Amino acid sequence: MQNFEYCNKTKIIFGRGTENQAGSETTKYAKKILLHHSGGSTVKSGLIDRVKDSLKKAGVEWVELTGVLPNPRLSLVNKGIDIVKKEKLELILAVGGGSAIDSSKAIAAGAVNDGDVWDFFERKKTTDKALPVGTVLTIPAAGSESSISCVITNEEGPWKRGMNFPCLRPVFSILNPELTYTLPPYQTACGVADMLAHIMERYFTKEPHVELTDELCEGAMRTIIRNARKIFSGGEKDYDARAEIMWAGALAHNGLLDTGRIGDWGSHTLDHELSALFDLAHGAGLAIMFPAWIRYNIKEGTPRLARFAVKVWGVDGAYYDIEQAALEGVIRMENFFRSIGLPIRFADANIDPARIPEMAKRAVHFGPFGNYRKIDEQAAIAIYRLAAE
Amino acid sequence: MQNFEYCNKTKIIFGRGTENQAGSETTKYAKKILLHHSGGSTVKSGLIDRVKDSLKKAGVEWVELTGVLPNPRLSLVNKGIDIVKKEKLELILAVGGGSAIDSSKAIAAGAVNDGDVWDFFERKKTTDKALPVGTVLTIPAAGSESSISCVITNEEGPWKRGMNFPCLRPVFSILNPELTYTLPPYQTACGVADMLAHIMERYFTKEPHVELTDELCEGAMRTIIRNARKIFSGGEKDYDARAEIMWAGALAHNGLLDTGRIGDWGSHTLDHELSALFDLAHGAGLAIMFPAWIRYNIKEGTPRLARFAVKVWGVDGAYYDIEQAALEGVIRMENFFRSIGLPIRFADANIDPARIPEMAKRAVHFGPFGNYRKIDEQAAIAIYRLAAE
Repeated sequence: MQNFEYCNKTKIIFGRGTENQAGSETTKYAKKILLHHSGGSTVKSGLIDRVKDSLKKAGVEWVELTGVLPNPRLSLVNKGIDIVKKEKLELILAVGGGSAIDSSKAIAAGAVNDGDVWDFFERKKTTDKALPVGTVLTIPAAGSESSISCVITNEEGPWKRGMNFPCLRPVFSILNPELTYTLPPYQTACGVADMLAHIMERYFTKEPHVELTDELCEGAMRTIIRNARKIFSGGEKDYDARAEIMWAGALAHNGLLDTGRIGDWGSHTLDHELSALFDLAHGAGLAIMFPAWIRYNIKEGTPRLARFAVKVWGVDGAYYDIEQAALEGVIRMENFFRSIGLPIRFADANIDPARIPEMAKRAVHFGPFGNYRKIDEQAAIAIYRLAAE
Repeated sequence: MQNFEYCNKTKIIFGRGTENQAGSETTKYAKKILLHHSGGSTVKSGLIDRVKDSLKKAGVEWVELTGVLPNPRLSLVNKGIDIVKKEKLELILAVGGGSAIDSSKAIAAGAVNDGDVWDFFERKKTTDKALPVGTVLTIPAAGSESSISCVITNEEGPWKRGMNFPCLRPVFSILNPELTYTLPPYQTACGVADMLAHIMERYFTKEPHVELTDELCEGAMRTIIRNARKIFSGGEKDYDARAEIMWAGALAHNGLLDTGRIGDWGSHTLDHELSALFDLAHGAGLAIMFPAWIRYNIKEGTPRLARFAVKVWGVDGAYYDIEQAALEGVIRMENFFRSIGLPIRFADANIDPARIPEMAKRAVHFGPFGNYRKIDEQAAIAIYRLAAE
C-alpha cells in the first residue's frame, strides 16, 4: 500500500426534499452568488424555482447564468468569470449534473486567479484558491459533487481537458434521488457507465496490497450494476435504487477508493478524444473505451482482470483458465452496457474509424499516459482499433 | 434509505514515517499545545522523541501530560483541562490509541466550555465547540482518530460513558502502520474486535434498502478478518496486513458506513458495564457481548444475521435453513475471536455471573437501548446470561 493523504471536506446532504436546504447552506458562505445551470430541464422540472425559493428565504441574492451544455464549454466559463468579478459574487451554486458543476468549478477558480483559466487545463500553472462551490445534483455520474476534478471543453481545439485541485471540492452538495426519476434512460445509463469507470480507473492498479479498497471498489460496482438493472427493469421511480446509484456515484470519485493505490485513467484520456471530436456523452465514450482497454490488457494484466470478472461480474472463480475468466468478465460488462442502451463499439455511436490516427495523436498531447500499462501513440491506435472492431 | 448528512473533515496522513509530519501539521493550527500520551510504550518505543523532534522543527511548544490508561479516566481529563486553561494551549496532540485520543477530546471540549465536562457524558448538555485535536495513532481499534466519539470512565461510579459531537473530530490524524508492529498480540486482537464491532453496530439495522453500505461494511469486515489472520500467523511485521487493519479501523468509525442507516449500539452499551466494573479492555468485552447479542436476536433477525454469516464468514448461502446459517455464522465468529486470543464468555475473562442483575440495571441507566431490537433490563439480563453460558 502506498502512503497517502485523504481529506474530503464536502458536506453531503442526502435524501428526499433536501434541495430546500440550498438557501440555508449557501448563506453560511455567501450573501450574493452565481446561480449556474442549464436553463433547460432544471427550469421545466420546477427545481430551479424551489432552489430560488430556498435562497430567497435565506436572504441570499443571486445572478443567474444559464446555458450549460454537456461537455461544458470554455466560452461560458469565461462569461461566468466576468460576471462573478463584476458583481463581486461570493459562491457559485451549480444546479444540474457534472457539466454544471464542472463549469461552476472553472468559474470559481478563474474568478480569483489572475490570467487565463485555460492555463490550468493546459498544465501551465496550478492553484490552491477558488471561490466556494455548492451543488444541487440532478445527474449521478461525474462524481464532481465531491471531487477535486473539473473537465472543460475548449471549443477552439476542440480540446477536452481536466484540472484537479483540492480547492475545487464543493463545500456542500445536495443529493436528492427523487430529482433523478425523470432523467432520460440514456442519461441514466451514461451516468452508470461514468461512475463504474471512475471506480475501474482506481481498481486497475499494479499496487499489490490494497485489499480494503479492492473490497470497497468491488462492493460499490456490484451495487451500481444491481441497482441499474432495477431501474432499467421498470424501476425508474424506485427511490432506493436511485438512492444507491446516487450515493455510489459520489463515493466513486470522492478520493476514498484510491487511497493507497495508483489508478490508471488511460480510458478517460482515450475517451476525451471521442467526446471532444464527436461530442459524445462522456459515459457513452467510456462504455466504448473501457472494454477495449480491458481487451488490450487481458494478457498482461490477467490476474486482476480475472478477479474483476469473478468479484464484479459473477464469473466462475475456479481459475482453471484465468484468461478465459477475464475475457468472460469483459463480455458480461459489454452485455450489461448494451442492456442499458449504451454503445460499446465505434459503429454504435457513428464514430469514423478513419480518424483513429488523429485521435491517437491528440490523446498523447501530454505524452504517454495511463499507469496500469503505459499507453503511447501506437498503443492508443491499437486500443481505438479494438473499439472499432 | 434514510436521509442523512455526511461530512468528515479529518485529514488522514497515512503511511511509513508519517509521524515526522506531526509538527508541520500541528503548526497550521497552534503554536503551543498539550502533548498527551501514556508515558509508557510511547516513550520506550522512541515515538514520543520523534514527535517532539518534529514539533521542535516546526517551532511548536508543548506542555506534556502523561498517564493515560486504557478506559481513560475523568480525573486525568480534569487535570488536562486545568493545564490547557492555565497555559493557554491551542491544540491537544494525542499520541497513542483510542484512550489517549478520547482523553484528548474530553480535554479539548472541557477547556472551552464552562461547567463540568462530565455533564456532556451525562447527556445534560451538548456542545459545538472544542479545541482542535490532532492524533498520532499507535493502536488501530477505537476509530477515534476520525470519529465524533469520545468515551471516558468516571472513577467515582465507576461509570463509563460516551459523548458524540462533530466538533470532536480530530483536525488531522497520522496513521503509520509500522508503529503497530510491536503491539502485544492481545491489544492487536482487542483492536480487531473493536473495529469489527463498530461495523457490526452499523450493519445490524432494520433499514431495508442500504445495499451500498451493506457491501462496504461486508468488504471492510472481510478485510479485517483476513488480515488479522495474517498477523496472527507470523505476520506481526507484515506492513500491508497492518496497513489494511489500520485503515479499516479508521473507516469503521468515521461515519461513512452508517450513511442512510440506523445502527444498533446495544452491544456497546452492554460492554460498557463489563469495562466499567471489571476494567476489561473494550475490545475483549465486545468479543464477549457481540456473540451473545447475535444469539439473542437469532430468531427475530434471521435474514440479516444469515446474510452476515454468508457474506462475512463464508457460510454456505444455499438458504435451505437460514436460521442454521445464521447460527453457523456466530460460531465462526466465536472461533475467530478465540483463535486470536480473545475471551468469548464471562468465564474466559473472570467475570462473575452473580453481578448480572447489577450490570443490567446499570446498562439501562438512560432507559432501554439499541435499535435493531430494543433492550430493556430483562433483555439485558437475558443477553448477559447468554454470555455467561
